[in-house]
Amino acid sequence: MTYKPRYADASMESMYRIFTVPEAPGSTLGNIDQKLSQNLAGFLQDHIVAVEKDLRELQKDFSESEIPEKPIFVSDQADFLLDKVVAQSVHTASPSFIGHMTSALPYFMLPLSRIMIALNQNLVKIETSKAFTPMERQVLGMIHRLIYNQNDDFYNQWMHEPGYSLGSFCSGGTIANITALWVARNQRFNKRKGFAGIQREGIYGALKHYGYEGAAILVSERGHYSLGKAADVLGIGRDFLVCIKADNENKIDLVELRKKIKELQKNKIAIIGMVGIAGSSETGSVDPLDQMADIAEEVDCHFHVDAAWGGPTLFSKKYAHILKGVERADSVTIDAHKQMYVPMGAGMVIFRDPNLVSSIEHHAEYIIRKGSKDLGAHTLEGSRPGIAMLLHSGLRIIGRSGYEILIEQGIEKAKDFAVMIENDPHFELITKPELNILTYRYMPDFVREKLATASPREVDQIQDVLNRLTKRIQKAQRAHGKSFVSRTTLTPVEYDRRRTVVFRVVLANPLTSREILQDVLEEQKQLVISQSCHQCMQELYALCNVSPLRVNVG
Amino acid sequence: MTYKPRYADASMESMYRIFTVPEAPGSTLGNIDQKLSQNLAGFLQDHIVAVEKDLRELQKDFSESEIPEKPIFVSDQADFLLDKVVAQSVHTASPSFIGHMTSALPYFMLPLSRIMIALNQNLVKIETSKAFTPMERQVLGMIHRLIYNQNDDFYNQWMHEPGYSLGSFCSGGTIANITALWVARNQRFNKRKGFAGIQREGIYGALKHYGYEGAAILVSERGHYSLGKAADVLGIGRDFLVCIKADNENKIDLVELRKKIKELQKNKIAIIGMVGIAGSSETGSVDPLDQMADIAEEVDCHFHVDAAWGGPTLFSKKYAHILKGVERADSVTIDAHKQMYVPMGAGMVIFRDPNLVSSIEHHAEYIIRKGSKDLGAHTLEGSRPGIAMLLHSGLRIIGRSGYEILIEQGIEKAKDFAVMIENDPHFELITKPELNILTYRYMPDFVREKLATASPREVDQIQDVLNRLTKRIQKAQRAHGKSFVSRTTLTPVEYDRRRTVVFRVVLANPLTSREILQDVLEEQKQLVISQSCHQCMQELYALCNVSPLRVNVG
Repeated sequence: MTYKPRYADASMESMYRIFTVPEAPGSTLGNIDQKLSQNLAGFLQDHIVAVEKDLRELQKDFSESEIPEKPIFVSDQADFLLDKVVAQSVHTASPSFIGHMTSALPYFMLPLSRIMIALNQNLVKIETSKAFTPMERQVLGMIHRLIYNQNDDFYNQWMHEPGYSLGSFCSGGTIANITALWVARNQRFNKRKGFAGIQREGIYGALKHYGYEGAAILVSERGHYSLGKAADVLGIGRDFLVCIKADNENKIDLVELRKKIKELQKNKIAIIGMVGIAGSSETGSVDPLDQMADIAEEVDCHFHVDAAWGGPTLFSKKYAHILKGVERADSVTIDAHKQMYVPMGAGMVIFRDPNLVSSIEHHAEYIIRKGSKDLGAHTLEGSRPGIAMLLHSGLRIIGRSGYEILIEQGIEKAKDFAVMIENDPHFELITKPELNILTYRYMPDFVREKLATASPREVDQIQDVLNRLTKRIQKAQRAHGKSFVSRTTLTPVEYDRRRTVVFRVVLANPLTSREILQDVLEEQKQLVISQSCHQCMQELYALCNVSPLRVNVG
Repeated sequence: MTYKPRYADASMESMYRIFTVPEAPGSTLGNIDQKLSQNLAGFLQDHIVAVEKDLRELQKDFSESEIPEKPIFVSDQADFLLDKVVAQSVHTASPSFIGHMTSALPYFMLPLSRIMIALNQNLVKIETSKAFTPMERQVLGMIHRLIYNQNDDFYNQWMHEPGYSLGSFCSGGTIANITALWVARNQRFNKRKGFAGIQREGIYGALKHYGYEGAAILVSERGHYSLGKAADVLGIGRDFLVCIKADNENKIDLVELRKKIKELQKNKIAIIGMVGIAGSSETGSVDPLDQMADIAEEVDCHFHVDAAWGGPTLFSKKYAHILKGVERADSVTIDAHKQMYVPMGAGMVIFRDPNLVSSIEHHAEYIIRKGSKDLGAHTLEGSRPGIAMLLHSGLRIIGRSGYEILIEQGIEKAKDFAVMIENDPHFELITKPELNILTYRYMPDFVREKLATASPREVDQIQDVLNRLTKRIQKAQRAHGKSFVSRTTLTPVEYDRRRTVVFRVVLANPLTSREILQDVLEEQKQLVISQSCHQCMQELYALCNVSPLRVNVG
């Protein structure tokens, strides 16, 4: 019996219907649903159009700004989505899409996601999540154990203890980093006699009370851009995110770090925290975490590790040592939607000490009351979906040993690809892969030879053209739609820190084959001699004093 | 051809398999999938166990802290999820679950969610989202138009213009509120001669430069708890979130507001912003937005409206006037996962002026480069899923007129329920519904009579028992599992602002019938005479000097 107040009419009946009766199995939507269950990858691949459409062209399908007055059929919307959205989306699961951190999903994530979405739990409180709350706490406990490896007693005591937290799920690494630094900031300026704490009095009151002229966070220049955003949001200011030069392996320069710390201390700038990177977004490099932990101990500041990308390396017995020292971090960011192959929206921040979150605890009258088991008391977000369910499933269905295989094959594939690039006379490897990310660029022999003897001014000129050329190749390859690498700008020591545009490759899709990698290089060489790169190539010939007819460019 | 490096072995082959071959249609997972497509509501309802299990009992299934070493079968995990998680989850879609803002989903959201998850786009950048980017911008444009109702020229100019933004999607209302106040804070202390801007120099530098002793945000005491969190995160401090008393209709007291503003100005506290509430979480009340807009204009501060819950009231021609003044707000929070019936994780913040976000703009080398169309340049979050697709679908499949029906029936159902409560001698309506939220409590005649003549001390004593009683009834009803209302604590003017625990009811599920509402009240009356309420009732009899045998309690 549905509700029938006085204003009941036929259109209301139809509104009720959408909440109850599924479309017939033979409907368009039913068919899509069926096909997606049967052969997800194939179905999507068949629909996604490879060749890039101009964005202005795409926008035309999304130009109406009025909300449609009348309902349309579900099947019409499904058709629209297939033609205009799926067709024009990015095939992130393709094994030749190796430019960003979004890779393929294990097929079981799809039906299980459906359970998650259908249940529509809200993890902010137990009353809308029940079993999802202890499940999330368990998953956080497991990841805590992966990082900190405490004993059973520790987890028996803390994993499910309300008022304490081993970490929290959040929408992604950015929110995880902000949460960690929020904790670091609030711990640093905690309440004490004559001061109610920064959470109540704010930064201005905190600095005045503690007697500082500013508060800083230190990180290498390879740090993720979310850290600058965190410094802004948290009221610290971007200028107080102190970026330390990276060495020629893209790791933080410890001498510079110590120097900077002294300088800050001399200028009465409080050091809130230090951030180590475990898998930088651009180069995949890992900071010397153990030595950073030593320095953080000396300085007595919060040590955060941004392992959003590299954290799952800990699954590998062979490569876990690269992250040595992460177990000394006060907090760690790790994304399940990256190398744990969970759909988008599954970030985590893990805290070594389950009491650390006390400085960000908050309550309300209608939920997250004191003493409750509601997870929302310690999270930056409020309402949140039960995506921990999907990591729980990943950890059980793939297992530690399965993740180990995935991690190791990614790292070893990257090493192989680096060798392929180094052996190819038309390319230059810019950053060696420490994990499964590397960067390189097009560099034919004649340019390499010229650079060996060029004056600084000539190097500048050549760099400028190479930068434009790399950009053009990357864009053309993306537009062509067969494969995709991304690009970034680095300042390599071997080029005297000149800005250098490079191709960036992330190798996390287990289906990416050696043949695909070879094809990526071949296609790039073809693009060099295409119209879109013609102008840059002419400039290179001129700068290197060679005749286009006499050189092998691809 | 998959990648076969030297370490290839059988277990790696099995890892590849999980990324490609779906389980057979007859498998457990295939069956679940099939059943969910066919009859989602029925399938889940059959599995969810109604009676509450003790949390300590539940935790036992989630006590292992080690990541399993070996993979298990997908079907085994699916069985585990059904038995231990689905069975012990909360049936948020049930029409008798009327305690929180998580309601039923239209059935079409499920298959369409599958497309979203399978495509796994990342909206932070165009390279991982393509058509999803203009689609998101369109949806934001539509919601902007719903609120601000600008003309076609405006949307043609701004909707797809990179570098500008009509708003952003985020995981929920909390992030939306934080984003809005982040913008307000940064605009207030923007760069000017001799000052690089708060985003670079931080709050301490900003207040020193601008010559203030603090920075405040004003909101009624009914404001959502996320605003306190925002004040903490943004470095303003919770003490500077100035909470203004609400009147007897739970709306901000404008006299108090003006008084407080004067006081702050006198004390050299900058006023960053003012927050109006359009549908408070606890009572559903709406602040006098138009008058608040006047005051914000006078003070020259940012005016934000938290319409996370009440925003969709604008779909109704009949009730949109309740939100009059919202079109004068600088920013508005609105949640699609509440009254727009999209799955969890779809918050939005909308900006009147598309240039407002310039003060929070940020860039990186490998994505969100200057001039790009990447949405990530103006969002608090980084990687984000393409959930705008589901609101796009809701707006088209339900249409404005459909949402209008849903909104109106919710408001009118709440009015009807209020009449039912007022006509029942055992209950007291505490807050009348302005939208579709109301609060009430158990209040038998004999207590009502006693209160009419009781001394302040006696009122205190009775209130104390009633508070405990309301809590006990609410918990017992939840544990019983048939229906669910939530509870909160208010300070009603008619009880001289004494703390008053109340039942809170949110009526957003179109399937909630009059019979269900009647049953909720009947069950509560039954619970009053059950063992769990015995002690409280004895105390009430004693305080009111009545014999339990001579009164009608339920």
